[in-house]
Amino acid sequence: MSVNHWLDQVKWDEKGLVPAIAQDYLTGQVLMMAWMNRESLALTEQEQRAIYWSRSRACLWRKGEESGHVQHLHSLRLDCDADVVLLEVEQVGGIACHTGRPHCFYKRLDAGQWREDIAVAKDPKEIYNHE
Amino acid sequence: MSVNHWLDQVKWDEKGLVPAIAQDYLTGQVLMMAWMNRESLALTEQEQRAIYWSRSRACLWRKGEESGHVQHLHSLRLDCDADVVLLEVEQVGGIACHTGRPHCFYKRLDAGQWREDIAVAKDPKEIYNHE
Repeated sequence: MSVNHWLDQVKWDEKGLVPAIAQDYLTGQVLMMAWMNRESLALTEQEQRAIYWSRSRACLWRKGEESGHVQHLHSLRLDCDADVVLLEVEQVGGIACHTGRPHCFYKRLDAGQWREDIAVAKDPKEIYNHE
Repeated sequence: MSVNHWLDQVKWDEKGLVPAIAQDYLTGQVLMMAWMNRESLALTEQEQRAIYWSRSRACLWRKGEESGHVQHLHSLRLDCDADVVLLEVEQVGGIACHTGRPHCFYKRLDAGQWREDIAVAKDPKEIYNHE
């Protein structure tokens, strides 16, 4: 277990998960937030790419395996309470969001309404029908 | 309820919470991640400053009320799944973390160890003993 000791220092929640924030290492843009379990965080470090835990599908989610929009890991950080991780990544294709946008935070509160202010860069049909 | 309609579009988790990421609006630095309930998110918008929900203390947490390290709101964003919010903020005092560091992600994974690579900017004793 000594090899994986750093994983023991993460405070996993009652479901065994930790929030993982992915940030573009060049621009600083916050790309997305997803969840990791112990296995996915271990694999993220091993493979130096973001591998999340899909809560909806209850399986490992190798970011980009279908879309090609892999997130190569530049650094992995843990917060003061050890219950959030921050990944600085290189976002392949410049698209992190399944909607085809550069990032997932494309709705901004404006006069009491969430308004989309980030354009779709690529039609999701083109992203996910390539195989 | 029409005034608060934007709050209804947030997908609160089973505890009525949503993760809230605070990012420095100038530098892009991810400062911290905490949680908000409906009331705290409504207040964040009303008062244009970050107001979280403290899970450990089970109460509203007006960021900076004790330390003075208020986070003034510049923008409020919602992600594609409507279950994460991103706040672009002006971090008063340049310190977001209760340890006296500029941000909370001061531990970086390096050769299998979490290593602190961000220095304390101000002794927490000085931050929290001012009243």
